[in-house]
Amino acid sequence: MQRADYRKRLGNKIRKLRSQRGWSQEEFADVCAINRSYMGRIERGELNLTLESLGKAAKGLSISVSALLKGIL
Amino acid sequence: MQRADYRKRLGNKIRKLRSQRGWSQEEFADVCAINRSYMGRIERGELNLTLESLGKAAKGLSISVSALLKGIL
Repeated sequence: MQRADYRKRLGNKIRKLRSQRGWSQEEFADVCAINRSYMGRIERGELNLTLESLGKAAKGLSISVSALLKGIL
Repeated sequence: MQRADYRKRLGNKIRKLRSQRGWSQEEFADVCAINRSYMGRIERGELNLTLESLGKAAKGLSISVSALLKGIL
């Protein structure tokens, strides 16, 4: 699997789940205690995320990191 | 879940799966193209791992990152 590919798909999945919960990207960043511009880069799949950051996003979405990555990586 | 807790459990799981496959830590590091001392720190749960590094370890273990994290994070 190509590197950029899984990042983009993960970012898209986070964006989709965040939208389904009715949050703007800025609101969701605040909920997760993640910097807003950093959240933008996460959703665009630009980052080599750490488990720490991914854990914050997963917690904000109320799912496990494992579930978030399922089918992606 | 406490931060150190999931790191230690993930490191222990990687160590266990690696041992089951008959590799020494050094051999496994080479298989994964991960620095040997870095692999030691991964197995001791000392690092805030990136998806990139975790992806290399998971690939070396022939499982998905999602499966590797299942029940841990």
